Amino acid sequence: MALTPYEQLEQEFRRLHAFRGALSLLRWDAAVMMPRGSADVRGEQLAALETEHHALLTTPKVARLLERAEAGASQMEDWPLANLREMRRQRDHAIATPPSLISRLAKATARAEVFWVEAKKANDFKLLAPHLEEVVHLVRDKAELLGQARGLAPYDALVDGFTPGISAADIDTIFKALSRKLPSLINEAIEVQAAHAPAPLSGKFSASRQRSLAVDVLKALGFPFDRGRLDESEHPFTEGVPGDIRVTTRFDAIDPFSGLLGAVHETGHAMYDLGLPLKWRDQPVGRDRGLALEESQSLLFEMNLCRSRSFVKYLKPLLEKYLQVGGPEWEEANLYRLLIRVRRSCIRMDADELTYPAHIMLRYDLERRMLEGSLLVADLPDAWNDNLEQRLSIRPPNDVEGCLQDIHWAVGHFGYFPSYALGAVIAGQLNEAMRAARPALDEEIAAGRFGGVMEWLRDNVHGVGARLPVQELIKQATGKPLTAAAYLRYLEAKYLEAP
Amino acid sequence: MALTPYEQLEQEFRRLHAFRGALSLLRWDAAVMMPRGSADVRGEQLAALETEHHALLTTPKVARLLERAEAGASQMEDWPLANLREMRRQRDHAIATPPSLISRLAKATARAEVFWVEAKKANDFKLLAPHLEEVVHLVRDKAELLGQARGLAPYDALVDGFTPGISAADIDTIFKALSRKLPSLINEAIEVQAAHAPAPLSGKFSASRQRSLAVDVLKALGFPFDRGRLDESEHPFTEGVPGDIRVTTRFDAIDPFSGLLGAVHETGHAMYDLGLPLKWRDQPVGRDRGLALEESQSLLFEMNLCRSRSFVKYLKPLLEKYLQVGGPEWEEANLYRLLIRVRRSCIRMDADELTYPAHIMLRYDLERRMLEGSLLVADLPDAWNDNLEQRLSIRPPNDVEGCLQDIHWAVGHFGYFPSYALGAVIAGQLNEAMRAARPALDEEIAAGRFGGVMEWLRDNVHGVGARLPVQELIKQATGKPLTAAAYLRYLEAKYLEAP
Repeated sequence: MALTPYEQLEQEFRRLHAFRGALSLLRWDAAVMMPRGSADVRGEQLAALETEHHALLTTPKVARLLERAEAGASQMEDWPLANLREMRRQRDHAIATPPSLISRLAKATARAEVFWVEAKKANDFKLLAPHLEEVVHLVRDKAELLGQARGLAPYDALVDGFTPGISAADIDTIFKALSRKLPSLINEAIEVQAAHAPAPLSGKFSASRQRSLAVDVLKALGFPFDRGRLDESEHPFTEGVPGDIRVTTRFDAIDPFSGLLGAVHETGHAMYDLGLPLKWRDQPVGRDRGLALEESQSLLFEMNLCRSRSFVKYLKPLLEKYLQVGGPEWEEANLYRLLIRVRRSCIRMDADELTYPAHIMLRYDLERRMLEGSLLVADLPDAWNDNLEQRLSIRPPNDVEGCLQDIHWAVGHFGYFPSYALGAVIAGQLNEAMRAARPALDEEIAAGRFGGVMEWLRDNVHGVGARLPVQELIKQATGKPLTAAAYLRYLEAKYLEAP
Repeated sequence: MALTPYEQLEQEFRRLHAFRGALSLLRWDAAVMMPRGSADVRGEQLAALETEHHALLTTPKVARLLERAEAGASQMEDWPLANLREMRRQRDHAIATPPSLISRLAKATARAEVFWVEAKKANDFKLLAPHLEEVVHLVRDKAELLGQARGLAPYDALVDGFTPGISAADIDTIFKALSRKLPSLINEAIEVQAAHAPAPLSGKFSASRQRSLAVDVLKALGFPFDRGRLDESEHPFTEGVPGDIRVTTRFDAIDPFSGLLGAVHETGHAMYDLGLPLKWRDQPVGRDRGLALEESQSLLFEMNLCRSRSFVKYLKPLLEKYLQVGGPEWEEANLYRLLIRVRRSCIRMDADELTYPAHIMLRYDLERRMLEGSLLVADLPDAWNDNLEQRLSIRPPNDVEGCLQDIHWAVGHFGYFPSYALGAVIAGQLNEAMRAARPALDEEIAAGRFGGVMEWLRDNVHGVGARLPVQELIKQATGKPLTAAAYLRYLEAKYLEAP
């Protein structure tokens, strides 16, 4: 029997899914296993597969099939219809940027990345400036074209590429609420904590012991080691597909929490991917609902569930078992104080839960102004330092600790940063709803039982895949539209609690 | 300036090369890193990339470009011309088998592989027989079509797919010479060795110590750890591309030679790939000259260079250093006796250098007869046992140690086995020529200096890539056409030497 146009599309996208899985493995290997001298060869392989993936997605055949399938959309059921909509979105995104612009952008970002490394080494923003300027120029063109194709404002179109369904207006509303509350909350939290400074940990902990500890915790979280791996890399990340998911972390010999919580953070991503609807796992509707929701899952695990008193209760005996530690600084109260310590820092990657959003809002401000043209790239360092001073009352002593710290803009990622803070806001709202539905959640965590958490997340978040727009998904999961309210309630309760 | 048809072909094949590299990494990962539960996902990725590779190679565009480039062949220089010839060969091979036959063969071999595992477990050939019969039937069709496309006899066309330029007539001539000499040579060698039985080694050696030893030896051989890796897997293999080459081995706690020489064997493959002409590394003419020559390189390293008195001299202090061993059984003479011990075995994988060709000639006989139809699959077990008894005077006690031991036929590899024995014959001839050119070779090896070997191999074998047909390559490298004479001289000298 001949396949319908929609069924033919499913076949095409099944193939694209396999390509994405292969690309993901090539990236994982490059970061974890590949010998250093092989970067150029791997670059050629990635480029060839990405080019082919793009070509397969943008063939006239796919366009024709989409039109024919869409003509019969009124007859389609819920999931296939959502799948068709996601196919259209992927294809329109891919086709909106002409190959000539893609290639110019690839070259410009490759160059800017090299000069970003140089500029950072030399603490000299001027080395990067002309190359970043070129990237901004090309990203502006891309945003314009994407916006036309998707019927969105240019910046919204960039955000849509990372987190479909979120607009700059949504971000503005949420960030305004955060900006109103966070500065005073940070001040008060630091004051509260100053009265009960935690005792520092001492000792050195081998990577193999830390790894055993992390494996034990990840198993409790439900990470499937028969269909996934935990490895080490310079920065923690998650790659792979639901049937073969791979997380990494980095163990620090004197800080046993950084490697563990890095692994937990990535496991939040992994469990999301693993909970996606199995039946649709090789189709667009079976994918995650974008970067902000991805980040909400990793932050929910790391911040809401594990930087908590109940998790410390579960963790303490494991620390004793695997790291063979003891003494007053390893008591629950002290460990918890260490896990939630608030400190102002110039570096985003070092920031704690409470000061982190300030770093993101700064970047959001500045990238919008650069794209609009109201901030010249040459003026970025001062604008950065002023903005941070305004938000956190500290000023970077140099550009390495200022506008040179992140690679994102140099490699063309604009519209990407907001999803980090949106993820925290979404995690806050999901956390509140989940705790309302499971009143005994803290006792479960203290006992190392995460099955209930997973069940709630599968039912309300993971299993939805990309069937709903993100705002709708959150509304169905929590009963409320997305706002910053639950997140702020959570932060206040956690950081103003009498210790 | 517009590209010429030939230049456009180079672009197309550059892309195919990148695909092959990605496929190779997917296979390496599956055998070394992949969690067990991910096999189905990996299977989908491999199939998608292989299908696309095949599609890109067989587009009408490539056919048109080939015709146009071939029309101008008389103007072309040596290397591009050879490259064009190899492009044609690859494309004709790929197009000769219609997709419907490829897909039937893929399904039949997938099924036969499953039943091969079952049959082996149950020691019951009947479980495999009907599925193997189907595979034989389909391979026969494939050989017919390949033969028509390449102007070769069917079986020659299968061999041509693995080792271009070698015919069944060549194999017959060489195997006849081996069959004439080897049986008596085996008898005499066993007699010579019986008078000086080696003392067995005792002790247990951790994988990490064995690994350190292997890394040291591989470094001496020239293996570049900045563009390659050594890992462990169930069976040793080599994957990757010249810029990122990966060998594996398997360490046996009580036999320190099996892991080391497995790694050395694979390093022979790796050094061949690394020595291929750099300028042509992403083109067909820059590839190895087929399976028999590949095998000649791994066997040259393992058998001719390293199962030798001079290598034992180099190895002894390393064994003492890394395995912390000593005593009479670790003396040079004893170690050498252990390394060249001849013992009749029913299992090919356990066979020593001298009895190995018998196992191959048996398989060559039987696969030709099965394809011709003069041997029915149902009669394979008896034919196997008779043939082995005739060649080695031992009879397998059951089919697990007989015709069920190898996976090759079940997965459709016919015309593949001969290259193992041809590789040994080629290695023998290269070894003789190399030693004539470098009279101090044994002193070099004893001192752990392999630079001279590599130089000779690069100049005479590796650097030729696929520019010459294999017979021509051997003639230029050794000054003589390929025969079994040098190989037999080498075996006689080695195994009849008064100990």
